[in-house]
Amino acid sequence: MASLFPPSFETLIDRFASLPGVGRKSAQRLAFYILSLPEGEAEAFAGAITDARQRVHTCPVCQNLTDGPLCPICASGRRDNSVICVVAEPRDVASVERSREYNGSFHVLHGVLSPLNRVGPADIRIRELVERVSKGGVREVIMATNPDTEGDATAMYISRLLKPFGVLVTRLAYGIPVGSNLEFADDATMLRALEGRREI
Amino acid sequence: MASLFPPSFETLIDRFASLPGVGRKSAQRLAFYILSLPEGEAEAFAGAITDARQRVHTCPVCQNLTDGPLCPICASGRRDNSVICVVAEPRDVASVERSREYNGSFHVLHGVLSPLNRVGPADIRIRELVERVSKGGVREVIMATNPDTEGDATAMYISRLLKPFGVLVTRLAYGIPVGSNLEFADDATMLRALEGRREI
Repeated sequence: MASLFPPSFETLIDRFASLPGVGRKSAQRLAFYILSLPEGEAEAFAGAITDARQRVHTCPVCQNLTDGPLCPICASGRRDNSVICVVAEPRDVASVERSREYNGSFHVLHGVLSPLNRVGPADIRIRELVERVSKGGVREVIMATNPDTEGDATAMYISRLLKPFGVLVTRLAYGIPVGSNLEFADDATMLRALEGRREI
Repeated sequence: MASLFPPSFETLIDRFASLPGVGRKSAQRLAFYILSLPEGEAEAFAGAITDARQRVHTCPVCQNLTDGPLCPICASGRRDNSVICVVAEPRDVASVERSREYNGSFHVLHGVLSPLNRVGPADIRIRELVERVSKGGVREVIMATNPDTEGDATAMYISRLLKPFGVLVTRLAYGIPVGSNLEFADDATMLRALEGRREI
């Protein structure tokens, strides 16, 4: 006998176990937790899944997640649309916004180029970015992908695509993190920090 | 600004983050995964939650989880109801069944006594067990709680409650696990294995 749990409980365990990073044991624990919830809370959980899946889509302009016709940033009349900051994931938008300094628009790629994981240019939102730039009115594109091999390769690839449009393509500065300690800076970061040194 | 995610997406992240052992980062990853599902799959996930919560309840006899009037074991006419194996959690039923040797009935406590966590006798299904035994027809109660402080204390507490009914109360043998290596047996296990030695 495989299990002595009732079928509808097994189904719930299977569902949780299908989530990324959730093993069989955790799935069981989560399913037990759902049973322990008041019925209204369990309904609300189910509703949140349906709701998010139905309502959330990508902004037709910047590809960020939204549940309106445009995302709040693209819908706002107070952003500088001649600058586009390109990020890999929706969560990266919040990171850039945290600087409280950036007032341009965004473009979310939903991934980075990764030959090993079979992610090619057609699998992320590069075409949409090129279209935006080709329409004109864009002065600068800031590449804000992660400072790793795949992020760098993606930034390089996109910058080559955009060069023909005569747009300035920049990328975030590499260097020692503010508040960090020189002692803990790795070789690569220190090298980039030296290369990028500025007069004070 | 706290977040730039759409409200219905934030709600879903909150729901996942409310699950035990799921942090904010994991909750975000799970919510993204839900968005990436085909709509039918997301609906099925939501349905599994509602379904399990609505259908699954505890068996009125043994307190194990079931979605029928009785659990399959209590409903089966082929089990020996004069023996009750007492376990802490529904998943422990499967562990005992795995021996393929046990043919009695079960009783699921849904927890163990734990003064530190404020779990007292009224918080687990002890009353239901005493009622079952008091009705007569029970020959033996096998305590199969975990071999730790709380499991032992729970077994001890219950055995004292049941003694007045003249029922035999036993507990699973402690000892070296089959297929294990003496070298790795801890002191307590070795002591119990010596105490419980049997003639061959």
